[in-house]
Amino acid sequence: MRDVYIAGMGQTRIGELWDRSLKDLAVEAALKALAEAQATTADCLIVGNMLSGELASQENLGVFVADSAGLTPVEAVKVESACSSGGAAFREGYLRVASGAAESALVVGVEKMSDLLPDAVSSGLALAADGDSENLHGATFVALNALIMRRYMHENGYKHEDFSGFAINAHRNAASNEDAMFPRAVTAKDYAKSCMVASPINLLDSSAISDGAAAVLLSARPKPGVRPIRVTGSGAATDTIAVAARKDPLWLSAAEASARRAFAQAGLKPEDVDLFELHDAFCIMAALSLEAGGFAPRGKGVRLAMEGEIGPTGKVPIATRGGLKARGHPVGATGVLQIVDAAVQLRGGAGASQVPGARVAMTQNIGGSGSSVYTHILAAGD
Amino acid sequence: MRDVYIAGMGQTRIGELWDRSLKDLAVEAALKALAEAQATTADCLIVGNMLSGELASQENLGVFVADSAGLTPVEAVKVESACSSGGAAFREGYLRVASGAAESALVVGVEKMSDLLPDAVSSGLALAADGDSENLHGATFVALNALIMRRYMHENGYKHEDFSGFAINAHRNAASNEDAMFPRAVTAKDYAKSCMVASPINLLDSSAISDGAAAVLLSARPKPGVRPIRVTGSGAATDTIAVAARKDPLWLSAAEASARRAFAQAGLKPEDVDLFELHDAFCIMAALSLEAGGFAPRGKGVRLAMEGEIGPTGKVPIATRGGLKARGHPVGATGVLQIVDAAVQLRGGAGASQVPGARVAMTQNIGGSGSSVYTHILAAGD
Repeated sequence: MRDVYIAGMGQTRIGELWDRSLKDLAVEAALKALAEAQATTADCLIVGNMLSGELASQENLGVFVADSAGLTPVEAVKVESACSSGGAAFREGYLRVASGAAESALVVGVEKMSDLLPDAVSSGLALAADGDSENLHGATFVALNALIMRRYMHENGYKHEDFSGFAINAHRNAASNEDAMFPRAVTAKDYAKSCMVASPINLLDSSAISDGAAAVLLSARPKPGVRPIRVTGSGAATDTIAVAARKDPLWLSAAEASARRAFAQAGLKPEDVDLFELHDAFCIMAALSLEAGGFAPRGKGVRLAMEGEIGPTGKVPIATRGGLKARGHPVGATGVLQIVDAAVQLRGGAGASQVPGARVAMTQNIGGSGSSVYTHILAAGD
Repeated sequence: MRDVYIAGMGQTRIGELWDRSLKDLAVEAALKALAEAQATTADCLIVGNMLSGELASQENLGVFVADSAGLTPVEAVKVESACSSGGAAFREGYLRVASGAAESALVVGVEKMSDLLPDAVSSGLALAADGDSENLHGATFVALNALIMRRYMHENGYKHEDFSGFAINAHRNAASNEDAMFPRAVTAKDYAKSCMVASPINLLDSSAISDGAAAVLLSARPKPGVRPIRVTGSGAATDTIAVAARKDPLWLSAAEASARRAFAQAGLKPEDVDLFELHDAFCIMAALSLEAGGFAPRGKGVRLAMEGEIGPTGKVPIATRGGLKARGHPVGATGVLQIVDAAVQLRGGAGASQVPGARVAMTQNIGGSGSSVYTHILAAGD
């Protein structure tokens, strides 16, 4: 497998974008990534998306984006892996270039969620859970995460307020990201009085229904004139789709396995990582991801937040541009947004939330309640 | 790119399978393919599917199939490309093994369509058309194909009865396929009196709403003890998603481009192909595919059917196990079913519809009205 470079990238603003369609979002991100790389097309187009059929009345999405962006007859396909669809699309593009099957791959992650009522969106997202044992019984994703968080608090002796650091860090970092959905700070007091969604998960524990897109052009050649960014590790793994079927609902075994594969490929360890763009769809997922990734012992992920070690100058900077929580979580786009956020950091362009001297970044995109996980490691410089 | 072999394959019966779920179908096909190859898992699982979310209330489908078949923690993902989702999944699996990114790939195509009313299925399928210019105005796929067929008849001077050979051949071949949806012969008289669906397309011009699944295990090593079947060519291309946006609605430019790429890779020409499993979702698509693939001059594809040259002993055998028309068309499964049909022929196991001495087979899977096309070439022997 040869080196793969990020030759260009782009994203839209993230938010409830009432005036932008699925097409508008995907095309804006795709053309920005091509323009930055001074390219007009790629050998293939891989689109990461979960719910275009259910929420935006469009399947055949690879062709739809290719055609809308003026890229036909390029080979184009949609990849779906629930909330990790963006990470799955990125891995697919990465493998094509790394293996020599293509010289370049344009990866676009997109989701348009706000055109339907929130109930319909929750029903759509619930399709990532097990139809027979979870979805059929009305368990939404916030409900499943609430069960996990309650158990985690019980087993490890945490109070709800102990998780506030995750929301505070994400929002503080989003404040300097002009594309973020919620670019404003929140306090521990805001967190404490935030309305309950599914106990113990409150509004500030949760990412929001979002619209947005992101794109990267992967190439076998670095972009001239800027600091090269290489993909040095890529790992994917799955776990049971139903949370109740797991031996241990508090351990993200697919996150552990995919991170182990990415670390092995990159020849790195957790302590080599300068920032970790993890999948903080809910605060509990941030805690579990830190543990599964090897950044904290089991049951101790929350302590990193409590001790102020997840900020840009901490031991394990996370959500450095706002994360899913505050940058926004347009589900099919999220895995690609994480790559863009990591690359912005490695280029030194993150402003007030810049991680000093960042050279190695890890991203991790989770589908379902930890059932499908994609981990990538990026490195700055040759 | 190294040689890739079909090490195992399996499929379900195709039909309206009221007692089988999406899970049942995918697992049956997957386990049959693994069992035939005497394997217990693969390096990755690629699932081709179009409408699991809309018609079977399940996304996160890669994990869902992996988990249901007992294959976690295998890497697993769903690939969507409308009715060419199966072909797209096969190409993805092929590229992973051919490029060395994986040693083996299990490709599963599946669709469960019959649980909802036909109107809901037609609405789901219409998501493969352009949302703004086709679907929004009520153009179903049969309506779009009817417009194309009417224009083709007008420009080339054909009568409707001239197309009957496509339906007669497909049904005759299906009669010896025990997994086919319609294993019975039809006559020219049946065709003439078949009820109209969308003029000029009648019932016997059309494939049916179907349930079913198929799977192949791709490997870098041939299966010991049987005649090896290699994938020697793979091509993919796209065209505008909207038929009205094309310069020439009677020319499948993506089919032409994808076939050209597959032929170039295999070092073959149309006359080297012993059988062609084409995408006969409607008879007009069979005619246009023969022309775009280089098997007939423009406007002359129908003549091959009129002159009896599409049967197992004709110049260009097509739909040799019944095709989409009579074997059935569970959309996400179709591209993989075509591979299975071709491999059955290359192994010499097609019974009454066996193509004598078949050594080279071509498959072509079309998404939308020709907007996304995957062409593969298989060869028997080393």
